[in-house]
Amino acid sequence: MNASASLIDFWFDFASPYGYLMSEKIEAVVAHHGRTIRWRPVLLFAVLRALDLPAPLDPAVKRDYVLSDAERSARHLGVPYALPDGFPAPTQHAARAFYLIEQSDPVAAVHFAHAVYRGYFQRAADIGDPALIAAWAAAEAPALGDAAAVLAQLQSAPTKALLAGAVDAAVQRRVFGSPFVVVDGEAFFGVDRLPQIEALLAGALAAAPHSSKA
Amino acid sequence: MNASASLIDFWFDFASPYGYLMSEKIEAVVAHHGRTIRWRPVLLFAVLRALDLPAPLDPAVKRDYVLSDAERSARHLGVPYALPDGFPAPTQHAARAFYLIEQSDPVAAVHFAHAVYRGYFQRAADIGDPALIAAWAAAEAPALGDAAAVLAQLQSAPTKALLAGAVDAAVQRRVFGSPFVVVDGEAFFGVDRLPQIEALLAGALAAAPHSSKA
Repeated sequence: MNASASLIDFWFDFASPYGYLMSEKIEAVVAHHGRTIRWRPVLLFAVLRALDLPAPLDPAVKRDYVLSDAERSARHLGVPYALPDGFPAPTQHAARAFYLIEQSDPVAAVHFAHAVYRGYFQRAADIGDPALIAAWAAAEAPALGDAAAVLAQLQSAPTKALLAGAVDAAVQRRVFGSPFVVVDGEAFFGVDRLPQIEALLAGALAAAPHSSKA
Repeated sequence: MNASASLIDFWFDFASPYGYLMSEKIEAVVAHHGRTIRWRPVLLFAVLRALDLPAPLDPAVKRDYVLSDAERSARHLGVPYALPDGFPAPTQHAARAFYLIEQSDPVAAVHFAHAVYRGYFQRAADIGDPALIAAWAAAEAPALGDAAAVLAQLQSAPTKALLAGAVDAAVQRRVFGSPFVVVDGEAFFGVDRLPQIEALLAGALAAAPHSSKA
């Protein structure tokens, strides 16, 4: 399978706690099986709206559970985590910067993504601030120019179009949550699906013991 | 903790695929740590309505994913599974029978719950049929009388009140999905939380590495 293996798409929103947890774990799992991830930040609210789905954390009863569960999941996975004040931050600048960097340097874009996620969920950095995002992007991808130059590009129509294209693709793929990982056409929603992703990559999730109805 | 340990509540709906998967796995995990489960079947639709939450599987995009994911999760867990035709079946008769049996014989009630879940998700038995449910209940708890006697009791006001009480308790506890397990006041939603339940029972989920905000 590896010879003709497609990229593994990792869809997420930069304000998604479970997306952050996945970002800390998936690379090692995928690399172990010789596969490659394509990071795909989106604006989850926009994708859900297009799919006619409610916003995440919308009912208060689920919000309380999810925020507590995310913190517990971080402990379970051994990942540093603290919910930032003002959660959830707007993520359009971070996502735009990712695609801007990715055009010329996909590796730097992944470094930038880690910086955003860790800044937000480890140090409560204000990732909604375009100036901060521009400074981080300039640091990861000097070819883009200094922070002021990146800040200008974040507001440009071509950069906005890159993110809009990713959101459209997410709607097409029916990405109804974050993280959402697609391996060889098969979708996995949630960081809790990491063991199943690993099993699929290892070829251990192939056969159904009861594939026909009795 | 074990000396004064409370019962572990396992809330579920008899038509819930993930609830079925949990029913096949949780007893061994809990018994390993010397704890005891209290099985609590409910009518999930009624609980969600009372909590002002949408029905499970309501948006088609999520329904398709969940049904596929449930089948995959069964393979991953090594549990026989086939989605029955006509899914989801009405479950009020099965849930009423459970509480009817439990009044006099909690162990038989758990045997009955396994019979219902396995009948439904392994052999596509019609668990919405009160006559079938009555026959199974009579087989598990002969003290209730024959199938005809059980069938009459399933329609009685006292039996209905048992289930209504469980549904009310689930609403109070904000049981927003199935399975929903509560261990020492802490809620776990989904069969995918089994590793975290196990870690909690083993005392390995106690400390938060980052409990304060930076």
